[in-house]
Order: sequence, then structure tokens, then C-alpha cells
Amino acid sequence: MTHRTAQLTLQDIGEQGLLQRLQRFCVGVGDDGAVLAVRGDRRLVVTTDVLVDGVHFSLGLGDSILTTPPHAAGWRSAAANLSDLAAMGALPIGITIGLSLPPQMPVEWIESLYQGISDCLAPWRVNIVGGDIVRSPQVSLAITALGEVPPQSILERKGAKPGDRIVMTGIHGRSRVGLELLLGREINLANPNALSNPNAWIKAHHYPQPRLDLISQFQGLASAGMDSSDGLGDAVLQICRSSQVGAVLDRQVILASPEIQSLIQAVGLEKALEWVLYGGEDFELILCIPEAAAIEFCKATGSYDIGFITAEPEVWLEALDDRRMLSLDRGFQHFSK
Amino acid sequence: MTHRTAQLTLQDIGEQGLLQRLQRFCVGVGDDGAVLAVRGDRRLVVTTDVLVDGVHFSLGLGDSILTTPPHAAGWRSAAANLSDLAAMGALPIGITIGLSLPPQMPVEWIESLYQGISDCLAPWRVNIVGGDIVRSPQVSLAITALGEVPPQSILERKGAKPGDRIVMTGIHGRSRVGLELLLGREINLANPNALSNPNAWIKAHHYPQPRLDLISQFQGLASAGMDSSDGLGDAVLQICRSSQVGAVLDRQVILASPEIQSLIQAVGLEKALEWVLYGGEDFELILCIPEAAAIEFCKATGSYDIGFITAEPEVWLEALDDRRMLSLDRGFQHFSK
Repeated sequence: MTHRTAQLTLQDIGEQGLLQRLQRFCVGVGDDGAVLAVRGDRRLVVTTDVLVDGVHFSLGLGDSILTTPPHAAGWRSAAANLSDLAAMGALPIGITIGLSLPPQMPVEWIESLYQGISDCLAPWRVNIVGGDIVRSPQVSLAITALGEVPPQSILERKGAKPGDRIVMTGIHGRSRVGLELLLGREINLANPNALSNPNAWIKAHHYPQPRLDLISQFQGLASAGMDSSDGLGDAVLQICRSSQVGAVLDRQVILASPEIQSLIQAVGLEKALEWVLYGGEDFELILCIPEAAAIEFCKATGSYDIGFITAEPEVWLEALDDRRMLSLDRGFQHFSK
Repeated sequence: MTHRTAQLTLQDIGEQGLLQRLQRFCVGVGDDGAVLAVRGDRRLVVTTDVLVDGVHFSLGLGDSILTTPPHAAGWRSAAANLSDLAAMGALPIGITIGLSLPPQMPVEWIESLYQGISDCLAPWRVNIVGGDIVRSPQVSLAITALGEVPPQSILERKGAKPGDRIVMTGIHGRSRVGLELLLGREINLANPNALSNPNAWIKAHHYPQPRLDLISQFQGLASAGMDSSDGLGDAVLQICRSSQVGAVLDRQVILASPEIQSLIQAVGLEKALEWVLYGGEDFELILCIPEAAAIEFCKATGSYDIGFITAEPEVWLEALDDRRMLSLDRGFQHFSK
């Protein structure tokens, strides 16, 4: 992104000017806090994510490569939080935004970010209900999403039972492949022509869909679950750790879709498997469901039955010719050396 | 703060190691979201603040002066959010923390920050219910506080009526004076010996008290209100703008306390007045209350009756020998050139 001097920046209009312009994206802003109703027979669910430029997305400031235009950065940030609500079985009631920005930031950029957030929220009829905008040398975005859920329908990581089927609500690895394409990296080293429709992968990275649409269908069925924001492998491992169980995953089903088959052609099995298991940010749900109900659920929703829960605590990925144990060490660690 | 190499840092223990250590400060963490109950006859109140090192406090990293040890930074961040709840008439039910940190951050520092937050929350029997810790070159803290309030007791900025008394729940300017002392700045230029007990001003800056203690006493009495986080002058102006009214403030009452009198001796009237009106971060409440009730409230709580609401939209500060109009332009603007 180039900062042309002709562009209107944050310091030109000041905080009050910015708040006025952002008013159209917000509801109930203007007091010290926002007021929301939680129905009496529901529990409140709260989740917070912080996204930092250069760490969780790249705005292309300084020397970095622009991978995420502001509209997409806004959408993804909102989607990540709505996905956490979906993973708890909760429907959203509002979000707050804490935005840190340098004064030189173009106003157009900020409005585009808010438009992205707003567009992601729109289908769920929820609003930005408040927040804070502060000066910082570092662009970052802290979103808190609020949702509500009937107490008996709260989905937790613990609760998976041996024999439960493990259900994956969509394809994994797409977001990571999209990012690699945006960065122009490894994807080009192998056989790029094999990869179907590059724009679809990039769109998966920019505009992930939080699976709030599935809540009514898994309510009362799922014994445990979480979202796959940190990767499919991480989600299965976290559920197993919390539930004190293990799992056997079927590699063939996980890699079955034509999209992932084209990825294997393009980059080879090992790289494809790494991205599918550990890529992260696909924002699908990983659910544990008793067998009979799982079959119905997969049929009704296009989800994949990728394995089953075991009493032994290890998590195995199995194929005809191969068997390997998954471990949490492989997952995304924010502060590793 | 010096980063001795012997100190345990975030990158030594990784994200999982840190989360384990912080577990003792948190409740209900470990799923994608935290679950809270809001009583059926209450409304949920949400408020978010972002605090950035070098902007809202100073940890003394790099060349900057340490004004805020981590325990105080934690306390103040929590207090700022609890104060926003108090300003809405809401009692806290939980907070979430989004923490951005460089990997070199000492673990001791992070634990001290959490201890400060935890100590501020303790009297109100609420917990840290969740959050996110991410890597960033910039230390910052995004706190979202959640509270509940009976619908008929929600306090808003709008609603002040001509004739209402304006009540200030404590002395203003103390936090700003504490900061000036910590920075070793202007306070030294005049007559520093006149200033009573420097440590008390510094404590006011580090450990402000959110006025949740007053909620039960102004419930049903106050027609409008907000907290004075951005300064006493700003609070009166915001209430007047939202309520489409004006105000007359009594300078003598605002400056009446022995503490502020000693400040006037030390730095002169104009500087003292600037800090009292625009210093900010004292986290008192500014309430509009009908006259009879206001007298009772001030007597019961040690609050100050500092003026009254008028139908004319201007806000005037009056003294025997002086009369001046206050304006929002003078308040704290985050992005001004």
C-alpha cells in the first residue's frame, strides 16, 4: 500500500471525525459501554482474539508483502471470533473492536476494514456494539465476540466418548494454500499447473465462513467440539486432551476432496498433508458425534466422517500404507524460538 | 526495565507454558469461549479499552521513562474498564484480556501484570474469564469488561435536565499530577515543596479506584452520568452534548480540597486548573442528580456538588473573578496533529 500524501489520513480528521465516519457501522455506541440483552434462558459466551499486522495478517506496510487487503482483514478477524462462538454452540449477539493504528493511516483503509467486519456480521444480523480506537505504531485489532446459547447446548472440548465419530465440517488446508499463493512461495516450486482455480484458495484465505449455519443441526448431538482455527490436527488433539481420550483419523477421507487431490498433485503428499493438518485458519468445526447421528449429520450438511474416538490417549493418522502419531508440539506456537 | 539474560522470557516457556502459569488468575479458560450467566432481569453491558505502551502508559522499554510498573499497568487497565461499567450503573461479571507481547518479555513481568489485574478485580469477586495472548513488537493490552444492570437502572450520558445538580464523586487532577511527578517534569519548575505527600499522587496514578462502590447509592437518582477517564471537563461536556443542555460549574468547589489547594501553591492556578479539568484518568463519576437527592448523595458519599445543568447549551466555569467557557476541542484527542 502506498501512502499518497493526497489521501485523507486519521490525523487529518482526528478521533471525533473518525468516530463520526464509523458510526454507520456501529449500533449503540456513544456511552461508556454498550447495552445488550441476553435471553433469560441462555448463557452468555465471550471470546477474544487479537490480530497483529505482520503476525496474523500482512497489510503490506513497510517491506512486507500485502497478503490481506483491509476489507479481507476485517472479514477474517470477525470470522475468527464468530467461529469461536460457533465452536461453543452459541449464536452471536454483538462484537466490540479495539483498533490500534498509527496516525498516518488512511481513512479509506479504516473504513474498508470496518466494511469487511460489517459484511461478515450482516448475515447473522449482529452489529459492532462498541470498542476503542487508539494510537499505536503497530496496527492491531482486538475483537471480542458475544454470543448466547441454551445451557444444555453448550459445546465444550471435553466430553468426547470412545466410539464417537469425528466429523470435519469442511475441507482443510485451503486457507494456508491461499496464503502461500499470495506470498508467491513454495506453491510455485513443484507443479503449479496441477492446482485447480487459484482464486478459490485465495478467497478461502481472505473470506473464511464461520460455521454458525450448522449450530441448529449439531445441537443436542455433539458430545464435544471446537473450531479448527489452529489447524485440523490441533483441534483433534485439543479435544482428545480435554476429554482424556485418543483418536484414529482416516487420511484418505481427510484428503478425499478433488481440491485436495489437485493440491497433492501440485505440491506432493507430504507438503499437502502438512498444510491440511497444521495450516490453520480454515475455521471449520471438528465435532464428536455418536455414530448413528454422525452419519445423518454428514449426509445433511456435506461434512466428512474422518475417524473415531478411542480410549487410548494417542491420536493416530492412518492410511493403507502408513500410520503416524500426531502431537501437539507440531501445532502453531506463537512464541517458539 | 533491564532485560537480564538470566530472566525467564516468554520464548523460553512458549505459549502453552505461559497459559499454564496464568491459569491461576483465570476462570473457565480452555474452550473457544468463556460461558457466563447474566441474570434474566438484567441487561448485559460491554466495554472495551485498548492500552498501548508508550501511549497510555510507559513500561520503560527502550529509551522511555518507566512510569508504570507491570502490576500498576494491570491494575489501571482493569480499573479503566470497571470504571466504564460503573458509569453505566453496571456491576462487573467478568473481563477478557487480549495481550500483545514481544517474545523477549520476561515471564515475571507478565505474571505481575496479571496479578495487578487480578488484585483490582478481587474486591468485586469477578475473574479473568478468557482472552488471547499474541506475539507483537508492541506491548499492548485490550480489555473487555462485561457487566450487568437492571434495565431501569442503566445510566446514560443523555437524560440530564436543566436544574439537575452536577455531582463529582472525588478529586480530579491527582492522576495527572502523579504522572508529572513520575516523569520528573513540570511539577519541579515551580514550588515543589508546597505539594503535600507526593506518594499519594503517584498512587492515584497507579492505582485508581473504579467507583463501583457508589452504584447502589445513585441507582434511581441519577438522570445522566459518565466517568471522568478523559477528564472532568470532557465528562461534563459529553453529558451536556448528549443531553442537549449546558452547565455552570463552580470553580471554587472543584478546587476546594486541601490537596488541590497545595497543588495550586506548587504550580499556580492556571496549571492546576488545566490538570484538574483536562488531566484525565481519575476514574471518578460525574453524575446529574435532582437537587434534593444530590444534597443527600453528596453527604452520604463525600461527593462534591460542583454546579448545575442549564437549558442553554454552553458549559461555563465560574469563579468570583472569572468566567470561562469550556469546549470539547480542549479534551484529549488521540490522533491530533
